[in-house]
Amino acid sequence: MEGARPVTSYDQVGIDDLPIRDELRGKTPYGAPQLDVPVQLNTNENPYELPEELVRRIAERVAEAARTLNRYPDRDAVELRTELAAYLTRTGKHPVGPENVWAANGSNEVIQQLLQTFGGPGRTAIGFEPSYSMHALIARGTGTGWISGPRREDFTIDVEAAGQAIAENAPDVVFITSPNNPTGTAVEAETVLALYEAAQAAKPSLVVVDEAYVEFSHRDSLLPLIEGRPHLVVSRTMSKAFGAAGLRLGYLAAHPAVVDAVQLVRLPYHLSAVTQATALAALEHTDTLLGYVEQLKAERDRLVTELRAVGYEVTESDANFIQFGKFEDSHTAWRKILDQGVLVRDNGVPGWLRVTAGTPAENDAFLEAVRALKKEQHA
Amino acid sequence: MEGARPVTSYDQVGIDDLPIRDELRGKTPYGAPQLDVPVQLNTNENPYELPEELVRRIAERVAEAARTLNRYPDRDAVELRTELAAYLTRTGKHPVGPENVWAANGSNEVIQQLLQTFGGPGRTAIGFEPSYSMHALIARGTGTGWISGPRREDFTIDVEAAGQAIAENAPDVVFITSPNNPTGTAVEAETVLALYEAAQAAKPSLVVVDEAYVEFSHRDSLLPLIEGRPHLVVSRTMSKAFGAAGLRLGYLAAHPAVVDAVQLVRLPYHLSAVTQATALAALEHTDTLLGYVEQLKAERDRLVTELRAVGYEVTESDANFIQFGKFEDSHTAWRKILDQGVLVRDNGVPGWLRVTAGTPAENDAFLEAVRALKKEQHA
Repeated sequence: MEGARPVTSYDQVGIDDLPIRDELRGKTPYGAPQLDVPVQLNTNENPYELPEELVRRIAERVAEAARTLNRYPDRDAVELRTELAAYLTRTGKHPVGPENVWAANGSNEVIQQLLQTFGGPGRTAIGFEPSYSMHALIARGTGTGWISGPRREDFTIDVEAAGQAIAENAPDVVFITSPNNPTGTAVEAETVLALYEAAQAAKPSLVVVDEAYVEFSHRDSLLPLIEGRPHLVVSRTMSKAFGAAGLRLGYLAAHPAVVDAVQLVRLPYHLSAVTQATALAALEHTDTLLGYVEQLKAERDRLVTELRAVGYEVTESDANFIQFGKFEDSHTAWRKILDQGVLVRDNGVPGWLRVTAGTPAENDAFLEAVRALKKEQHA
Repeated sequence: MEGARPVTSYDQVGIDDLPIRDELRGKTPYGAPQLDVPVQLNTNENPYELPEELVRRIAERVAEAARTLNRYPDRDAVELRTELAAYLTRTGKHPVGPENVWAANGSNEVIQQLLQTFGGPGRTAIGFEPSYSMHALIARGTGTGWISGPRREDFTIDVEAAGQAIAENAPDVVFITSPNNPTGTAVEAETVLALYEAAQAAKPSLVVVDEAYVEFSHRDSLLPLIEGRPHLVVSRTMSKAFGAAGLRLGYLAAHPAVVDAVQLVRLPYHLSAVTQATALAALEHTDTLLGYVEQLKAERDRLVTELRAVGYEVTESDANFIQFGKFEDSHTAWRKILDQGVLVRDNGVPGWLRVTAGTPAENDAFLEAVRALKKEQHA
C-alpha cells in the first residue's frame, strides 16, 4: 500500500520512542554473551551430545506427533506428566503422580506461571542473593515486587537472617534455590522447613524450591518436603541432567491444588506436540543420561580439587558448575581466561567467576588457563 | 522423609485454600471442551494432516537439532525469523526482514509478551467484542486492565463508536482481530488506519492487528500498514494456514524497535530447538500447505451457501470458520448438533454458534446435522 521500500529504512525509531513500560526503559535483554570460542563453559550446559540411539528415538516420536500436527497438542500433557512423575518417584525418594506434576517451556515458564498465580501486581517475592537472576527478572516481568534477601559471606543461607527478612517483608512467594546458582551451594532440608514455617507465619506464602541442578548434588532432592505442605513447590528442568537445554522443558512437583491453580494462567496449549514427544523420548533414556551426570559429578569434584591445588578459593558445589575466585577484578580475570579460548561466566558477584564442568578435555583447557592466570598474578 | 503415602491422599486442599490472586478465585482454565466425537469442528484446526514428505523432513531437521540438544537453542531464532520474513514478503505484498519479525510459542505468547511490554499493571487494553477471548484473558494474566469495546450488531466495527471508545479510555494497547474470531469478520484497512490515528491521538498506544486467520481471507493482509507506523503490530500464527496447531508457533511483524522491545520481557531461550527445526521444515513446504488453504476456502464458501439455503443466518466469513444462527438457545442447539456426532463451538455469543470448515466429508456430516436441527425446529 505504501510501496516497496524496506520497512527498516523508513525512520530511526528506537525502543525509547515506543510506549513501553517505564521500568523497562534503559534495560537490556537477559542472556549470557554468546561468543564463538573453542571451550564454552559459561551457561551450565551439559557437554555431552545426545546418544545417537536417543536422537533416532526422538526423530521417531516427533514424526509420529508430526502426522497430526494439524491438531492442538494435549493441553494437559498427561502422558508427559505421568512419565515425569515416574522419574521423580524413582529418583526423588517420594511417590508422586501426574496430578502432582506440571510442565512448561523451561523452568522459567514454570516460574512465570507461579508468579502470575501467586505473585503479580501488589504482591512481592523474595530470593536470597546472589541467586538465579531470572527469579528477579520474571518477578519484574509479572509485575511482582522483588525483595533481595540475605546470604552469608560463604553463600550459605543464615536461617535467622533469612527468616527475619521473611517476617519483616511478608512476601507472597519465597524462592530457595538448591543447589544455588551461581554459587553451587546446597540448602539443608532443615533450612527449607524453617523458612517455610516463617513464610506461613508471616503470610500464607508459596515457597518455591528451585532444584534445576539437583541431580548433580551430593544430597537427595527436597521433593519429599512437599508431603503435608500444600504451599511448597519443587521446580525442576530437563535442561541440565537430561542434557536437553535446547528442549526447554521445565516442570514442578507440588500438591495437586497448585497444579490446578497454575492452569488458571497457563496459555492454553502452551506445550507443543513436538516438545512433548521429544521429552518423552528423552525420558525413555533416563539411565544413559544419568550416567553422564555421574561423569560430570566426578569432573566437577576434580575441578574443585585442582582449583584449590592451584590456589583458588572455591565455593562448595553441589551443581555442575563451580564458583571460584577471589579476584580483585573479576571482569578482567574473565577476559584473560577468554583470551585463552575459554569462556566462563561473570555473574556480577564481586570477586568471583563461575565455570561449568565440561568434558575432561574442556576442563583441562580451563585448568590450563586459570593456572596461567595464577602465575601471571604472582609474577 | 515423611514416608511413602501418596501425596494426593494427605488432605483435601483445593485451589481456594491456596494464596492465589483474588481475581483468579472461582475462575476455570480457558479451553474448548475436548470431547471424543467423530467430527470435531470446534477449534478451527486445519483438518488436513501434514503430508508424509513433510513429516519426513520434520524428522530429519529435528534429528539434526536433537544431536546438539544439550546446548541452548538460538535465543534470537534468526534462521526461523528470516524464513518467516521471506514468507511474509512473498505473501503479504510488503517486504520485511528478520529485524521486523519475532516468534514465540503460539500467537498467545506473542500477545503475552506484547502486553508485558506495552500493557501490564496500571495500563489498559481494549478489544472490540465479541472477539478472540484470549486477548482479555492474557490481559488479566499480565495485570493489564481490560476494556470491552463495541461492535455493530452485524459484527463489523463501527469506526466512530470504536474511535470514541479509544478516545474516552485512552488504552495503552488496542486489539483489532481481522478476520475476527469467532465471527469471521474482516476489518477494512481504512478502519484500522482510523483507529490507529485515534489511538495515537488519545495516547501513543500500540495497535495489534491479530491476523491469525488471514490466509483464509478474501482480502490481502494488512501487513503493509506497518510501513511508517512504528506502533502498529501484525500478529500471525502457523497453527491454521500451516496446519500446525500442535507446533505452537506464533509470530509478529512490526518496526524493528518493537522486536527489540519484546526481547526485554521474553523468557531467555523461550523457543526450543525442536520447535525452530519443525517450523523451518514446515516453511520449506509452504506451497503444499497453502494448497490446502485454497481447498478450505472453497469448503468454507460452500458451507456458507448451504447454511443459507437451509435457512440459517450466516455472518460474512473471511476465516476457516463460520458463525451461524440464530438460535433462541444456542447452548441447546450446540448440544443437539453434538448428539449427532458433530462438535461445534458455543462461544457464548447469544444466538450464534461457530463451525470450523473441515474436510468435505466432515462438512457434509455437519450440514446433515444442522438440516435435521432446522427440520426439528419447524416440526
